[in-house]
Amino acid sequence: MNKLQVGIIGASGYGGAELVRLLLNHPDVEVCAISSHQYTGQPISALYPGFQNCTDLVFIEQEQVIEKSDLIFVALPSGLSEPIAKACIEQGKKIIDLGADFRLASSTEYEKWYGKPFGDPQLHALSVYGQSELHHDQIKEAKIIGNPGCYPTSIELGCYPAIVAGWVDTDHIILDSKSGTTGAGKKLTENTHFPRTNEAFAPYKVGCHRHTPEIEMMLSEMAKKPVKVTFVPHLLPINRGIVSTIYLPLKTDVDLETIHQTYQEAYQNDPFVRVLDLSKVADLKFVTYSNYCDISLHMDSHTHTLIVVSCIDNMIKGAAGQAIQNMNIMYDFERMHGLTTIAPSF
Amino acid sequence: MNKLQVGIIGASGYGGAELVRLLLNHPDVEVCAISSHQYTGQPISALYPGFQNCTDLVFIEQEQVIEKSDLIFVALPSGLSEPIAKACIEQGKKIIDLGADFRLASSTEYEKWYGKPFGDPQLHALSVYGQSELHHDQIKEAKIIGNPGCYPTSIELGCYPAIVAGWVDTDHIILDSKSGTTGAGKKLTENTHFPRTNEAFAPYKVGCHRHTPEIEMMLSEMAKKPVKVTFVPHLLPINRGIVSTIYLPLKTDVDLETIHQTYQEAYQNDPFVRVLDLSKVADLKFVTYSNYCDISLHMDSHTHTLIVVSCIDNMIKGAAGQAIQNMNIMYDFERMHGLTTIAPSF
Amino acid sequence: MNKLQVGIIGASGYGGAELVRLLLNHPDVEVCAISSHQYTGQPISALYPGFQNCTDLVFIEQEQVIEKSDLIFVALPSGLSEPIAKACIEQGKKIIDLGADFRLASSTEYEKWYGKPFGDPQLHALSVYGQSELHHDQIKEAKIIGNPGCYPTSIELGCYPAIVAGWVDTDHIILDSKSGTTGAGKKLTENTHFPRTNEAFAPYKVGCHRHTPEIEMMLSEMAKKPVKVTFVPHLLPINRGIVSTIYLPLKTDVDLETIHQTYQEAYQNDPFVRVLDLSKVADLKFVTYSNYCDISLHMDSHTHTLIVVSCIDNMIKGAAGQAIQNMNIMYDFERMHGLTTIAPSF
Amino acid sequence: MNKLQVGIIGASGYGGAELVRLLLNHPDVEVCAISSHQYTGQPISALYPGFQNCTDLVFIEQEQVIEKSDLIFVALPSGLSEPIAKACIEQGKKIIDLGADFRLASSTEYEKWYGKPFGDPQLHALSVYGQSELHHDQIKEAKIIGNPGCYPTSIELGCYPAIVAGWVDTDHIILDSKSGTTGAGKKLTENTHFPRTNEAFAPYKVGCHRHTPEIEMMLSEMAKKPVKVTFVPHLLPINRGIVSTIYLPLKTDVDLETIHQTYQEAYQNDPFVRVLDLSKVADLKFVTYSNYCDISLHMDSHTHTLIVVSCIDNMIKGAAGQAIQNMNIMYDFERMHGLTTIAPSF
Repeated sequence: MNKLQVGIIGASGYGGAELVRLLLNHPDVEVCAISSHQYTGQPISALYPGFQNCTDLVFIEQEQVIEKSDLIFVALPSGLSEPIAKACIEQGKKIIDLGADFRLASSTEYEKWYGKPFGDPQLHALSVYGQSELHHDQIKEAKIIGNPGCYPTSIELGCYPAIVAGWVDTDHIILDSKSGTTGAGKKLTENTHFPRTNEAFAPYKVGCHRHTPEIEMMLSEMAKKPVKVTFVPHLLPINRGIVSTIYLPLKTDVDLETIHQTYQEAYQNDPFVRVLDLSKVADLKFVTYSNYCDISLHMDSHTHTLIVVSCIDNMIKGAAGQAIQNMNIMYDFERMHGLTTIAPSF
Repeated sequence: MNKLQVGIIGASGYGGAELVRLLLNHPDVEVCAISSHQYTGQPISALYPGFQNCTDLVFIEQEQVIEKSDLIFVALPSGLSEPIAKACIEQGKKIIDLGADFRLASSTEYEKWYGKPFGDPQLHALSVYGQSELHHDQIKEAKIIGNPGCYPTSIELGCYPAIVAGWVDTDHIILDSKSGTTGAGKKLTENTHFPRTNEAFAPYKVGCHRHTPEIEMMLSEMAKKPVKVTFVPHLLPINRGIVSTIYLPLKTDVDLETIHQTYQEAYQNDPFVRVLDLSKVADLKFVTYSNYCDISLHMDSHTHTLIVVSCIDNMIKGAAGQAIQNMNIMYDFERMHGLTTIAPSF
Repeated sequence: MNKLQVGIIGASGYGGAELVRLLLNHPDVEVCAISSHQYTGQPISALYPGFQNCTDLVFIEQEQVIEKSDLIFVALPSGLSEPIAKACIEQGKKIIDLGADFRLASSTEYEKWYGKPFGDPQLHALSVYGQSELHHDQIKEAKIIGNPGCYPTSIELGCYPAIVAGWVDTDHIILDSKSGTTGAGKKLTENTHFPRTNEAFAPYKVGCHRHTPEIEMMLSEMAKKPVKVTFVPHLLPINRGIVSTIYLPLKTDVDLETIHQTYQEAYQNDPFVRVLDLSKVADLKFVTYSNYCDISLHMDSHTHTLIVVSCIDNMIKGAAGQAIQNMNIMYDFERMHGLTTIAPSF
Repeated sequence: MNKLQVGIIGASGYGGAELVRLLLNHPDVEVCAISSHQYTGQPISALYPGFQNCTDLVFIEQEQVIEKSDLIFVALPSGLSEPIAKACIEQGKKIIDLGADFRLASSTEYEKWYGKPFGDPQLHALSVYGQSELHHDQIKEAKIIGNPGCYPTSIELGCYPAIVAGWVDTDHIILDSKSGTTGAGKKLTENTHFPRTNEAFAPYKVGCHRHTPEIEMMLSEMAKKPVKVTFVPHLLPINRGIVSTIYLPLKTDVDLETIHQTYQEAYQNDPFVRVLDLSKVADLKFVTYSNYCDISLHMDSHTHTLIVVSCIDNMIKGAAGQAIQNMNIMYDFERMHGLTTIAPSF
């Protein structure tokens, strides 16, 4: 069988490099081309020496990547994907964008958070928000995928069954998320300078993070009415992983066992979402370096609040892994292909 | 001037050892005696080699500690302090208890969380909850201090001005706290085994931590009505510090500038509480190894929620440091004495 | 094709669990049985939740593991493998022992470091020291493999070409190694208690670590004369990886370019050993979670000392990965099978 | 008593800021002025928020710092201190330079490692290498102190008694040092980017670090003959501290007890150097945040090599603390003043 030819635009950043790392072990694809604006001409192993002996891939121009590939992954900063998507569509190719450009349905919302409206609304009409578990059927048919953000992934999976069931007082949802430093990317910043970050901890962009509209879009879809949330991300002094502690005040009288059963049923066909047994607590340790999302459920009965803990690896289930999961759906590959790594646990 | 003779019961644990470390640099006291059930007869420097050349103190029996000291600090597991307090009072001595035994006002609440009622209610009538900033005047006169818990300290200071002002919808307070591993103490546990804890993150005792009644007691005192909270602690893979992210939905129309001014005024005479300028975010980095509590204020205006970030060093402001602060109040020492260390920042 | 049936004895410890984790993704084998003395009857996913949805394996008795398997991996503390090896041989099965019992050729040396002589010397006559790159041909035919220790693996690969070439003054070899905490295993100890270990660093077993005779055995084999070394291991406050800084004083006049070329040639057919370009420095970051050994070469010309830096993941190339590499050799499987993971780099 | 007026030039960097932090708690001095080229006009608390409520110091011009101060600490990159020293001397002031400009006695050596010869050799004639324990008497009289480097401090203290005693084969000294990331300073670099550095480990400047000539200068002074060393520094993924593992092959037959006794006697009047009991191992944990240097001694009798482990806090004993220790000597202050902090141990 001929393997699918895939290319990665923006493969020198963390998201793109993680895609290369995972795709090199995917049995159904061949990584045929990668690009990097800054490092054109260099092998990826010069930038990330872990690739030595594993691949000879060299960064080339992004136009060539499009040309050589059947499917193009884009891992660029927000705001740069529209023209690439356009070129892909014109050449009959598919695209999975790991940035924010195709996540939001509303140009108005996009403009509010990213400073400009959609440049080409017709492209957006072709795109699907690629939440692998929740939008499976649309992803199957899509030509452009807006791959979900890392925080939204953990939160949407954690909220879905409870909100759809109608149990939640959606006026008081609090989302307290914590992310490892790879979420901040490869660029040097004060906030990722080792002596500053190590043995430190703090929130950032308190109540004003750009993932808020994406989360609200999806929670509103679940609730079938507009939902607003309070969302606060924090920076963990570790490399990888997101834990979202989700506070869902309940408006109906439902017990934890029922909730637990509903969650298990909701995800019974989704191997990457693991609803833990009651009394267990989801922990980053058991998801990092894997594509799993672990969810644990807890009831604070004295305030009648459902507390959901949702953990993922931000670079995998929160980025490159979910992108591959979406590719597997689009091309009808085995759904575990490329995603079989088990979290190390130690 | 004769120095105050102070003793520490339970000085082999983290809380007790931190007291010794700080008190050895307090100009008004002499650490005259320390005890440890397990290590009697050994020098503290055998257990913590950092004390070499700094002190010759040897662990002795706790009865001797009481006898030799004017003021006794107790740093034992909960449930062991009543008889010690009784002996201290009978011998005309004062006691600051770092455990939970004298924190709660209600024997019923205590029994609910600790499994037995107060053994000697009269002792509790003599005791004061030692929140240094909020109970300053009672502390001055007290013979028994129940030193606050680490999580409650960060939360109470973070909530106080807003709740007293009457702005908060006290039915939906969410408290999401994160603590370093020293909070778990010196005892070996699965959850503090390095390969398990490092590069991991998770909540624990979700919605059922023993500090909940202490927090509710104090928030109810502020609100002048019963307040229930949802409180979730998490374990940070670092040594020290607590960050509490406090979600206070507002029921009145008040702007962030007014709130900020109110917080600044509330703590203007409290050097250890620093209300940061608006737009700054409190960060553990700038409080660890010091007795400061840093508070930053943030408004999520689209959900009308005040978000307070409150940071302390759990071993200092959350335990040994606040105990010393209370001693300084009780004995009219300079309030900075023993507590002048500035957070290292790197 | 029927897959090779493999079993793991001692699969609840770190070495055994890592074997399970990697072998579950090996295309040529089926993990048919695992045992744990302490956890018999429990699923491995109860102990390491990362295995949920990935395997239903339950710990059974070790006798059953032997019975069900064609090849048995043993990951037990030293001193327990002889009777297991005996049973395997009697039942016509092969065994790869990750402990120390079959590493040393000399019963006298073994007794000196482990407190008892070989129990069954005939078994040892059947065994091969499984340094995958250096003993490839003997491994192919072996029935019992003594899988190398983690420190020796990094050191032997780092020393081999230089010592064989005869350049090294073998009377003054200094080996300064640093290991992550997983090397200490799953058992709780003071030295792996998070607040004690984090932000700390120190050597241990200075000049008297049990891996010394194993290293000397192999370096003597290379030098064709007895070699003694000074070996000091240190505990790094990280999870994984070993860096050995190897000081080889040179007795002949050879330049770094020649040395480099010799190293590259020595390992040109060994994909898991990467001799870095001159001017590069080997770093744990690019080997952890993979089976690679990265080696960089440096000359201190003013003391005429060759400095070799050799990095591996202690749990993979230093234990479970090399065991799989040996299995691949023994059964003529593709040599990358089960070992394709690329180090994450971030 | 009038307090000594001290100023710090370069107080925005880590070394300078640590000086401010420690000096603010020194009873005999007043920090009257600080400068920073980059941050002139800003309060130090804007840069390091831990200083809030502790000092109102604002960065001013360096000329003003010299003018206002009796003693000037300089914490600038190497190559900038000569003109400052000149101005200080001309104005009758003293200077302690934390950079490398006044450490080396030989202009030739300086040029070899720093690219230019001494600009003003007469200034160097006035300067003293400020190893507090070993050069106590010269420091007392000095006007210009070249404060030792961090690595050299740990190594010189670790080597001194053995080399002076004449036991060491000085042709084969190996120095394997490991430093926390604060040693790399405040400047953002690839090597201190959190996701790159965390859970990584590697040497750097292998065999060619600029501290080599400083170490050789001092070891030659001890040996009374030229000594060359092989020195390899490594970057530890922690904030603070240096561990030097020092390999001293012995040329004479001396037992460990004798060596230990000699070390204890050598440092019996130096409270900041703690020679640990035999069988103990020096560990960073018990020196960080303090001015102590812990030394443990070990014998590898099968290679007849003395192994010395020497630990310090690189920012304190390795920089700001030793500078204060030198000031205390110069001005006859109590030698513990400003340096009483005990290492936290957890």
